[in-house]
Amino acid sequence: MLTLYDYLDSGNGYKCRLLLAQLGIPYERIELDIDKGETRTADFLAKNPNGRVPTLQLDDGTCLAESNAILCYLADGTPYWPAERLVRAQALQWLFFEQYSHEPYVATPRYILRHLGRTHPRMAEMPERLRRGREALGVMEAHLRMHDFFVGGRYSIADIALYAYTHRADEADLDLAPYPALRAWLARVAAQPGHVKMLPGD
Amino acid sequence: MLTLYDYLDSGNGYKCRLLLAQLGIPYERIELDIDKGETRTADFLAKNPNGRVPTLQLDDGTCLAESNAILCYLADGTPYWPAERLVRAQALQWLFFEQYSHEPYVATPRYILRHLGRTHPRMAEMPERLRRGREALGVMEAHLRMHDFFVGGRYSIADIALYAYTHRADEADLDLAPYPALRAWLARVAAQPGHVKMLPGD
Repeated sequence: MLTLYDYLDSGNGYKCRLLLAQLGIPYERIELDIDKGETRTADFLAKNPNGRVPTLQLDDGTCLAESNAILCYLADGTPYWPAERLVRAQALQWLFFEQYSHEPYVATPRYILRHLGRTHPRMAEMPERLRRGREALGVMEAHLRMHDFFVGGRYSIADIALYAYTHRADEADLDLAPYPALRAWLARVAAQPGHVKMLPGD
Repeated sequence: MLTLYDYLDSGNGYKCRLLLAQLGIPYERIELDIDKGETRTADFLAKNPNGRVPTLQLDDGTCLAESNAILCYLADGTPYWPAERLVRAQALQWLFFEQYSHEPYVATPRYILRHLGRTHPRMAEMPERLRRGREALGVMEAHLRMHDFFVGGRYSIADIALYAYTHRADEADLDLAPYPALRAWLARVAAQPGHVKMLPGD
């Protein structure tokens, strides 16, 4: 059985949980508390030398890191990853956009607020991070004004990857009111068959 | 013919140039000076709403952004992107590692030093960026102590993506002396058939 090393409050972990649920793949989930350094132990670094969750362990013990690479692996051969060469490359474009232009400016502000608190010195980073977060949301909004889903006209891992932290943007002090097409897309994603929520209290 | 919107000093652009050369694919290269805002014009934003080079324009006018997505597109069906599901996912793992854990801490310090200069206020970011840059180089070094190439026992787009900024690390104030396995890998990559250098003066 697959083992997912995970942290419940991680949107990157949630991406994997959401796709695993929609694919109906059973797995064991092992919770590691990033705030307590549980991803930096010698045992875990042997699984992922970069010391991050999520990390997926396969039946043969092989470990795969990076949430979006895990999505590609799990979705390979399923309708969640497009088969056509160009559409697949467009899905990858959005996955790289998510990690480079979105995650540091939507997920990291949320992390600072929820895990460090409003009196932490890292609050100094917030204005620039939120400026770039709004820039990323603007790029998404412009695309979603003309498309129901990010690529290929249907729900794919590109939507899963971008949904994870975008649907928690309010927890990052990012107001989604100016992005109506994006909000309609969030609702479409949440209405997909097999959708699961991120946190137990949601 | 393919058109590559590019900037010569960009390692992200160089990734595409290197693979295009090794695949023997002819293309037109259009230079956009990022320091002069040439990637933020209305014309270019219509091609890539995220306003970044490299961007690859296909024969039918479709534009593909994100250097690593462009690598995947170009390498699809060639020996540069592994065919096996797990090895392909491992290549993607390193491509996402490159964009999230390496590029902001190896490429950005180089950008600050070469394009903004040592008196710019953004020099304040250098210590933390270089600390994380050394962390990323350490993860690569540990992997390369046991592997000749990043995945599948042979040269692939994972090597191309990580080579681009790593081989200019000295220009980012990152000393590669403590990473002998990484330096041997740089030499192996530079010795691949069809290898081209990044800048005319190299």
